[in-house]
Amino acid sequence: MTLRFGLIGTGRIGQVHAANIAASDETELAWIADPFIDGARQVAARFGGTVTEDAEELLTSGGIDAVLVASPTPTHVDLIARAVELGLPVLCEKPIDLDIRRVDALRETVRTSDVPVALGFNRRFDPAFAAVRARVDAGEIGALEQLTIISRDPAAPPASYIAVSGGIFRDMTIHDFDMARFFLPEIVEVSATGTASFDEGARDHGDFDTAVVTLRAASGAIVTIINSRHSATGYDQRLEAFGARGSLSVANAPTSLVSLSTADAVEAKPPYQDFFLERYERAYCEELHEFVKLARGEASTSPSFEDGRAALLLADAAQQSAASHAAVAVDLTA
Amino acid sequence: MTLRFGLIGTGRIGQVHAANIAASDETELAWIADPFIDGARQVAARFGGTVTEDAEELLTSGGIDAVLVASPTPTHVDLIARAVELGLPVLCEKPIDLDIRRVDALRETVRTSDVPVALGFNRRFDPAFAAVRARVDAGEIGALEQLTIISRDPAAPPASYIAVSGGIFRDMTIHDFDMARFFLPEIVEVSATGTASFDEGARDHGDFDTAVVTLRAASGAIVTIINSRHSATGYDQRLEAFGARGSLSVANAPTSLVSLSTADAVEAKPPYQDFFLERYERAYCEELHEFVKLARGEASTSPSFEDGRAALLLADAAQQSAASHAAVAVDLTA
Amino acid sequence: MTLRFGLIGTGRIGQVHAANIAASDETELAWIADPFIDGARQVAARFGGTVTEDAEELLTSGGIDAVLVASPTPTHVDLIARAVELGLPVLCEKPIDLDIRRVDALRETVRTSDVPVALGFNRRFDPAFAAVRARVDAGEIGALEQLTIISRDPAAPPASYIAVSGGIFRDMTIHDFDMARFFLPEIVEVSATGTASFDEGARDHGDFDTAVVTLRAASGAIVTIINSRHSATGYDQRLEAFGARGSLSVANAPTSLVSLSTADAVEAKPPYQDFFLERYERAYCEELHEFVKLARGEASTSPSFEDGRAALLLADAAQQSAASHAAVAVDLTA
Amino acid sequence: MTLRFGLIGTGRIGQVHAANIAASDETELAWIADPFIDGARQVAARFGGTVTEDAEELLTSGGIDAVLVASPTPTHVDLIARAVELGLPVLCEKPIDLDIRRVDALRETVRTSDVPVALGFNRRFDPAFAAVRARVDAGEIGALEQLTIISRDPAAPPASYIAVSGGIFRDMTIHDFDMARFFLPEIVEVSATGTASFDEGARDHGDFDTAVVTLRAASGAIVTIINSRHSATGYDQRLEAFGARGSLSVANAPTSLVSLSTADAVEAKPPYQDFFLERYERAYCEELHEFVKLARGEASTSPSFEDGRAALLLADAAQQSAASHAAVAVDLTA
Repeated sequence: MTLRFGLIGTGRIGQVHAANIAASDETELAWIADPFIDGARQVAARFGGTVTEDAEELLTSGGIDAVLVASPTPTHVDLIARAVELGLPVLCEKPIDLDIRRVDALRETVRTSDVPVALGFNRRFDPAFAAVRARVDAGEIGALEQLTIISRDPAAPPASYIAVSGGIFRDMTIHDFDMARFFLPEIVEVSATGTASFDEGARDHGDFDTAVVTLRAASGAIVTIINSRHSATGYDQRLEAFGARGSLSVANAPTSLVSLSTADAVEAKPPYQDFFLERYERAYCEELHEFVKLARGEASTSPSFEDGRAALLLADAAQQSAASHAAVAVDLTA
Repeated sequence: MTLRFGLIGTGRIGQVHAANIAASDETELAWIADPFIDGARQVAARFGGTVTEDAEELLTSGGIDAVLVASPTPTHVDLIARAVELGLPVLCEKPIDLDIRRVDALRETVRTSDVPVALGFNRRFDPAFAAVRARVDAGEIGALEQLTIISRDPAAPPASYIAVSGGIFRDMTIHDFDMARFFLPEIVEVSATGTASFDEGARDHGDFDTAVVTLRAASGAIVTIINSRHSATGYDQRLEAFGARGSLSVANAPTSLVSLSTADAVEAKPPYQDFFLERYERAYCEELHEFVKLARGEASTSPSFEDGRAALLLADAAQQSAASHAAVAVDLTA
Repeated sequence: MTLRFGLIGTGRIGQVHAANIAASDETELAWIADPFIDGARQVAARFGGTVTEDAEELLTSGGIDAVLVASPTPTHVDLIARAVELGLPVLCEKPIDLDIRRVDALRETVRTSDVPVALGFNRRFDPAFAAVRARVDAGEIGALEQLTIISRDPAAPPASYIAVSGGIFRDMTIHDFDMARFFLPEIVEVSATGTASFDEGARDHGDFDTAVVTLRAASGAIVTIINSRHSATGYDQRLEAFGARGSLSVANAPTSLVSLSTADAVEAKPPYQDFFLERYERAYCEELHEFVKLARGEASTSPSFEDGRAALLLADAAQQSAASHAAVAVDLTA
Repeated sequence: MTLRFGLIGTGRIGQVHAANIAASDETELAWIADPFIDGARQVAARFGGTVTEDAEELLTSGGIDAVLVASPTPTHVDLIARAVELGLPVLCEKPIDLDIRRVDALRETVRTSDVPVALGFNRRFDPAFAAVRARVDAGEIGALEQLTIISRDPAAPPASYIAVSGGIFRDMTIHDFDMARFFLPEIVEVSATGTASFDEGARDHGDFDTAVVTLRAASGAIVTIINSRHSATGYDQRLEAFGARGSLSVANAPTSLVSLSTADAVEAKPPYQDFFLERYERAYCEELHEFVKLARGEASTSPSFEDGRAALLLADAAQQSAASHAAVAVDLTA
């Protein structure tokens, strides 16, 4: 039986989910809600579904089996709460909220409910990162001692986006915090350094465009996250898991198999893929597939509400560390 | 307006075309013919279309705008002839036929007709090979002096396939002959050497499993084609265009961005993609797209009937050269 | 005219310098001092020179034009002081001392003297690192925003070495501190995290075997140093300079041009070079060559006494930061 | 006891040998002969040795234990003959001669003598090629089925050199013929294609600047040699040994560990090493070392006079094949 989805939000990421829901045999796009009704209509025209301006209508329509929340961050907490109340499994885009207090207010509800809530940390489902995790777990490189994540966006977002983003740690690094926890769930300390090197928007809003974060895991392993809001070569997404017996590395995704060799330079390749929609195309499909299993009560690797909260806690700690120039201890198990 | 396709043949390659025809906004799978009617039915169940055991019924149904011929090679000539007679644009899988006399018998009909006939040399549409061709044409490496094509299948086909294949040159190298002509249309001489190193099927049928072909172009450029019927590392598809100012190379397609480094070996990657359906997935889509333009009378880069004939002439010359241990002059312009 | 060298210390690194001094047309190995006289004799047997147990005899022999100090760290300060007093240019292995107070006590003497004093930060002379520095300076990647240094030794030293090493930051990271300053001389803040993951010796002596250090430069650029006392794949020495217009990277040195591709893994290469003597072989020659220019009063890029002091200050700050879990501000200009 | 060498010829390659003879503990440069006496004197000034214009004086001086022949090709046969007569082991640069009849006239003398005669096929001693051979022999890739050698010089030699070179096959491909025989000694058939694409000198002297040669081995394995007299990217020296279980490849030698990534191209490296003196520096040392063993009557891998003759036979066959446009059968065992 196909899982009928209600999609809330039809921006860039909502459209990706709509296409994947429509393309899969397991799922069906049944309802689409967006106050910007034209967006909803355009999605419905391509992938089917009933449209509404009102998410509540979608949630109470009776025509859906699960909810995909891709609306703006400030709406996430209330939508998750309502979906849980209505017994609808929900896959929510990250972050849960920019304010940990609002997240914590919802936490008990989610924890005591049987309704599955998953967070959209898509990178866990990237075939490369997933393979490295599986191979680390299988002991291929021995004990994991260092994890290095290089994560740079192609270009800084507009200042208007920066203004409401919650800052680089909550907006961008949050993916890397979750990736760190994908390998090392128990992070116990966060140190962060940030600077506004090139982006006016970041500077004007007291944000950083360049940051380095160091995490300590309970195991003693150390994670390093290197971020930038721009990258001339395209989306820069690398990872190295270093252990006692060797290392597993994820390279950037080539856009071409072609290389050029001349008297000036040899083996030169075209720049990397532009951004996350291309780089993580397959990850979004896998993410959906795992959520379907979760919604059906099957074993699933979907990141949980707790994973979403943990990433936000780490982002908050990073923000505090960058401001105080001191490491911040965290307790994700509390 | 969508182009309604009649698909003849629902084997491995027919299924690829069916999926692409169904997936594109430009095209529609209207009719499907296969004497093995279950094959046709399975394709119809997934992608739609009316099924028939009889290609003639499909051709004269009035419900199609173009024909895609993916049936066994011996049927190609008659199906092309009939499609042309009925005024239906046709995209035919390679080769036109194993017998150049049958091809030549059809040649005048195709030449004097206005009905577009295209050959399924899909590799021309691979983004990497197409990019190298475009960059060579743009003068990026100066005059093209040497073209080296390495083309190895993952594993030898069954002996029963070898028996009717027409031999390695007409069955496998034919793609490389067309690739050579993609860069250097006017080939004037063919030298070939073949051996049966490992495959019983090849040995039993007087065929080769390993071959090297050298082509001379009218420009003086030399093409080298290196073939094997097996490759432990997966489908091996490489090309190097070498010119006065440098070279452009196509590498094998990685199946993963992950590499492992240990005390035994560093930067080790998983094997390459298994075979042509994966490696040339995008090429098949592009091929279809270009054929749609051709069928609509628009400018198109589809390989022509003449390209199909030229590749077969080169294959025949290679066969003759391998047997006679002498170079064979060819005139593709006649 | 050749520069006659007095070499003090004939351990592993002293032997490298002896060989280079003997091999160059510019230099001559005139005197060799080591209380372990057999070591001195063996060096003299291979490369010439008069031997003595007593460094003072070497310094006052009148037969040398310059001094190369490769004796144990605790002897460095006194030997530099004496060489300066005697007017002998001195190239001293890093570090100047493990105690910044002893370095500072010598500082004024060196500063007010005309006698050239150089520190043996050999990595500055590695062709790859030097090329990246030159290209960054030439503006090839725009403003330098992030510098990432991965520096891992093949295997942890014996516990007895750890005991007197001054700790990982003063012993091992000190090279990376200098490399950071090679690109960004004005470091203003140091954050460090360390752990003892695998090495008993480190654990027993309160030292770290794994560390990550973050440096902030006056320019706003951020440096990340990733260290480990072991590396299964061999000596791991990489660097990435990331700027507004792209990045320049230094890869590990391959030990072979050969790669193996099989059904299990493709493009697998042999492990990297074992250790610094191989990896930095050319760097030691260049270092000597630059010091000869310095000793002759010519323009030279030899790292100075002040560079040696700055690296130690950064190491001290890292030690303090790792202990206090807080960033430490530094003023290298004082 | 050191082996005292008489060096005949002090051109580019003679100077390489002189330096290696002088640098090794096993060997000594005792005599140097060159009619161009200034060349001999310059070599003697750097590396020692008595000079003479007359090779005969060197050979009969009584002061040498072995001869290294690096004089022009036409002198090789007589010098080898004389050295053998005098009982002096001889290492002769390739080729023995351009005329197989002169080689054959000398053959019986060498065959029936106990005096070791070695040919300077230096590439066998390159660590990468030697490693691939050893690993192929060890069965790492199963039975060897295809060997592909890409060998391109950086730039065409002057027309005056071409005029006396004996043609591309005898002058340049001869190294590749020997490399082929390093893996597959028994070659039974040669096919060659050549063209003069870009070089006036080649065109004027009826020579080729571009060539492809196919060899068949008795085992059934096929060798492909791809040659060009120019290469914009530097000296292009690659090899792929392909077998039933995988392949072993030799890549070009990087001149730097640095790569540049920008918005235009990523991972771009500097061009390859310029020419054979750099690329095969270590090979020349190993070649000398093996010859010393041969001269001392120890087990040695030095290529023999017969290897030199075989390479010339293959070159002659290639010349004939390129002219006749037909394969040429060869019998290297006769």
